[in-house]
Amino acid sequence: MLSLEQLNAAATAGDFAALLDGVYEHSPWIAEAAWRQRPFASLAALKHALATVVREAPIEQQLGLIRAHPELAGKAMVGQGLTAESTGEQSRAGLTDCSPEEFDTLQRLNAAYNGKFGFPFILAVRGPRSTGLTRREIIETFARRLDNTPAVERAECLRQIHRIAEIRLNDKFGVVPLQGRQAWDCAELLARHSDVQDAAGDPVLTVTYLTEAHQACQAQLLRWMQDCGFDEMRVDAVGNVVGIYHGSDANAPRLLTGSHYDTVRNAGAYDGRLGIFVPLIAVRELHRAGRRLKHGIEVVGFAEEEGQRYAATFLGSSALTGSFNSAWLDQVDADGIGMREAMRAAKLPATMEAIEAEKRDPARYLGFVEVHIEQGPVLNELDLPLGIVTSINGSRRFVGEVIGTASHAGTTPMDRRHDAALAVAELALVVERAARREPDRVGTVGMLTVPNGSINVVPGRCQFSLDLRAPTDAARDALADEVTGALQRIADARGLRYRLTETMRASAAPSAPAWQVRWEAAVQSLGLPLHRLPSGAGHDAMKLHDVMPQAMLFVRGGNSGISHNPLESVTDDDAQLAVDAFRQLLEGLE
Amino acid sequence: MLSLEQLNAAATAGDFAALLDGVYEHSPWIAEAAWRQRPFASLAALKHALATVVREAPIEQQLGLIRAHPELAGKAMVGQGLTAESTGEQSRAGLTDCSPEEFDTLQRLNAAYNGKFGFPFILAVRGPRSTGLTRREIIETFARRLDNTPAVERAECLRQIHRIAEIRLNDKFGVVPLQGRQAWDCAELLARHSDVQDAAGDPVLTVTYLTEAHQACQAQLLRWMQDCGFDEMRVDAVGNVVGIYHGSDANAPRLLTGSHYDTVRNAGAYDGRLGIFVPLIAVRELHRAGRRLKHGIEVVGFAEEEGQRYAATFLGSSALTGSFNSAWLDQVDADGIGMREAMRAAKLPATMEAIEAEKRDPARYLGFVEVHIEQGPVLNELDLPLGIVTSINGSRRFVGEVIGTASHAGTTPMDRRHDAALAVAELALVVERAARREPDRVGTVGMLTVPNGSINVVPGRCQFSLDLRAPTDAARDALADEVTGALQRIADARGLRYRLTETMRASAAPSAPAWQVRWEAAVQSLGLPLHRLPSGAGHDAMKLHDVMPQAMLFVRGGNSGISHNPLESVTDDDAQLAVDAFRQLLEGLE
Repeated sequence: MLSLEQLNAAATAGDFAALLDGVYEHSPWIAEAAWRQRPFASLAALKHALATVVREAPIEQQLGLIRAHPELAGKAMVGQGLTAESTGEQSRAGLTDCSPEEFDTLQRLNAAYNGKFGFPFILAVRGPRSTGLTRREIIETFARRLDNTPAVERAECLRQIHRIAEIRLNDKFGVVPLQGRQAWDCAELLARHSDVQDAAGDPVLTVTYLTEAHQACQAQLLRWMQDCGFDEMRVDAVGNVVGIYHGSDANAPRLLTGSHYDTVRNAGAYDGRLGIFVPLIAVRELHRAGRRLKHGIEVVGFAEEEGQRYAATFLGSSALTGSFNSAWLDQVDADGIGMREAMRAAKLPATMEAIEAEKRDPARYLGFVEVHIEQGPVLNELDLPLGIVTSINGSRRFVGEVIGTASHAGTTPMDRRHDAALAVAELALVVERAARREPDRVGTVGMLTVPNGSINVVPGRCQFSLDLRAPTDAARDALADEVTGALQRIADARGLRYRLTETMRASAAPSAPAWQVRWEAAVQSLGLPLHRLPSGAGHDAMKLHDVMPQAMLFVRGGNSGISHNPLESVTDDDAQLAVDAFRQLLEGLE
Repeated sequence: MLSLEQLNAAATAGDFAALLDGVYEHSPWIAEAAWRQRPFASLAALKHALATVVREAPIEQQLGLIRAHPELAGKAMVGQGLTAESTGEQSRAGLTDCSPEEFDTLQRLNAAYNGKFGFPFILAVRGPRSTGLTRREIIETFARRLDNTPAVERAECLRQIHRIAEIRLNDKFGVVPLQGRQAWDCAELLARHSDVQDAAGDPVLTVTYLTEAHQACQAQLLRWMQDCGFDEMRVDAVGNVVGIYHGSDANAPRLLTGSHYDTVRNAGAYDGRLGIFVPLIAVRELHRAGRRLKHGIEVVGFAEEEGQRYAATFLGSSALTGSFNSAWLDQVDADGIGMREAMRAAKLPATMEAIEAEKRDPARYLGFVEVHIEQGPVLNELDLPLGIVTSINGSRRFVGEVIGTASHAGTTPMDRRHDAALAVAELALVVERAARREPDRVGTVGMLTVPNGSINVVPGRCQFSLDLRAPTDAARDALADEVTGALQRIADARGLRYRLTETMRASAAPSAPAWQVRWEAAVQSLGLPLHRLPSGAGHDAMKLHDVMPQAMLFVRGGNSGISHNPLESVTDDDAQLAVDAFRQLLEGLE
């Protein structure tokens, strides 16, 4: 068993690398370079330092590291040229028991992959829970990654190498991310409840407001709260699952935390839910230790955030802030079922009186914190497990159409055209430039189409959408003004008309500085560097922002941060760090 | 009756303007400015000079001219404030007999028009044949022009004012464009034959290869050839209608001319057909005068150019050049009717032997000339009735798709995106810049779409088309190389992949210099300035180019040069000038 003390005591880079031998395949240069940054405050700090050495190395050196790995397919299956660790890892993943069809598929994928990229396919076959991917998962990942560009795939191979190294380091240090695996297992278990199943009967994770699956999730969350030692737990008038772990001082304000358990269609297992599991597990640890903090902890599994079944969103958090609109009760879903009816079927009172009674008195709360998967690529690319949210970006959305003159692509000279698509092309590039100029702004033309376009007709119409977001309302509006002003100028210069309709405007929710500092202190105490970033997506914290201070912690998402997708991924190690950070935050509340 | 001699003799600008009083509404400045350009070689030259004065005047002066006109609706119908000419013109168009509904519609359109543009709606109500538009045509034009941008509509009003002035000048000079009206009437009559009728039984002009309407057109063209005094006339093996007017020297090579009589769906009446009527009417004049030129004249109404019924195009001209592909006979139309079967039903031999017998011996021909409506906006914007074609542009077409990474529009920072649509936006602007850099090139992204795009998703895919044309194959290929090279660079810079497939490549057909000069001489002899331009669209001349010298003459299209559309328009005056130019060309052949 290796210890941080031993490592930090290594007198030479060579000694240091020798202690870490086998963590990175035949590449002692990584440990040698990281040695200069000792002492390491934590295993997480060491992992980040090693990954940073690789990320900042020249491409040739990165490729050398990748090529130092045996091929997953082929060599693995005939047992040649593997280090003991690799064979063990692949054996655990069951790759040695391939069927002839699977073997053929892997051989084919391997040939295509080598032909395209010129380096071996690297995959941490022990996966995000360190306990092994299935052969099917391996083959699907292989096929999917074949579509990457070489630069993207090189970076992904390096991230997989870091994950392999992380698991090897855990083994070397005798560390098991137990609470992280609990969070991971909770996500797996909760994802078994779904409104939708595939042909094989497996869930296509979809949990929308007050369906049977949604109610099953409520029951599951209540059971877990009980297991974790919560003092009170209940389903509230809008379906939120609320658990309270009392503080030692009954008059002290509570910490409010939580996230949503509803999902989009064909969702990932962590979006929202991770922010329920993390405080549950933190409370469990307090309870196991027989500890009470001064302040009570109130964890809410919000019933609805995604706006999938009814047109309204944030139904759960709106009840807590007293902003639940009574008109929402009259909404009907795609099957014609009204919200009131759905509430009654779920044994909720379905009255505004009951809903209004859920409104929280901000004076009784310290504030609101929320842990959430990033749903973006930033932490993943920086090899950072946790990030500090500075603000939930404000946003504005528009849909528009530019109207020019359709004309013959052959006979209309360039200087006689009124091409609607070129105006939108210019606009899209203006959006990109304007958003790039300041950090943390984003702007997107996500819908873009020339209706009934023909190869030989100058576009007479072009339809588009705009999605503009920034950390403050002022920055958001400045971006919108710049973009809409540019559209006017572009249209004038090209002799075009346009229509532009604003379809959404959401205010920014900057983190409360004192609470952001608490998250920063928690992350730093884990030995991790701080990375601050805005949240581009909306969250329940955005609603709570209206009535109390709030701040969020982001957890790295694998697979380039993909979200609203079954490929959404969090490792047991990262979930562990999220639990650790949450516990640190709790300790800092006194 | 006014004469050019009188006008050219005017000693002062004032005298000159007095002679032209009433031609332009209350705006003697136009004639005064044109006076400096006297003497005028022809009425056409005078008309062009007047229009040029207006086109080059400051916008405020142009608006003054427009505002000097009474409102078509309202004032016209209550008979107030109109000059005698205006009342007469509107009366001829039947506007005084409006129904209450039509009156209401006109009042509504007028209010909307004044609100949008701030100047009165101007329309030459005597129309392209000088004999009056229907109330329905007037109302439809009014409604359509309401959609124009102010700059486009201001220019259209000025063109309508020139048309009003042209008709007034014709009246003042006692000129009637008789042959032009014959051509116009032929177009109207031939357009009564159509494969498609609307709900009211009116033709939606569509004449595709060998349908009943197509055969009716053959019969009509044969009758007209007979009327015009042709010596021989027949329908050939592919359905071309061929008429020959012998020359005085039986051994002298013939002039070959003509154009196609098939149409696209919902077509205009002049595309192709004008190029048959003009030589027919020219021959008629020779025949009436009992004259024979040294060279025979062979006029071909080509049976097929548009590729509407079968996948192949240029079936008619291919037979003459010996490039009719025998495999085409096996093609089937949308109803499963094979080309052979369609030929037999139309009483054609349907054998390659018969088709190959139609191949012309180039040694027996001087060359090929073709008169065609421009199908573009150039001549219309320059107030020029005729243009000299320098080349039929070569073209290349591509369809493509850029593949990036779909990701969350809120959570993906700008510098982490692989946005497929932005790459296509850049490409579209590269196409525009590259095409603009050299005259007579055009480049178009006509199809552009983000498949299944969402407002909050960074585009992962974007599909597009490219249509690139230039007067020489070398220029066309240079343009294509520049554009495809840019696509590669853009994709590399953005970390994207792409697919690009070439779907068409057509060679340029530059005009034979000696024949282009003949057209130039003919146009100059009419007192008109020369304007040379390439043809962006393909024509039968492109096929004949493979075997003999060719050159084309373009005739101005009204309604901004719109084509493949029922709004396609040619005036009687312009058709007259085309006949005059053709006759001049004939005279220059000796």
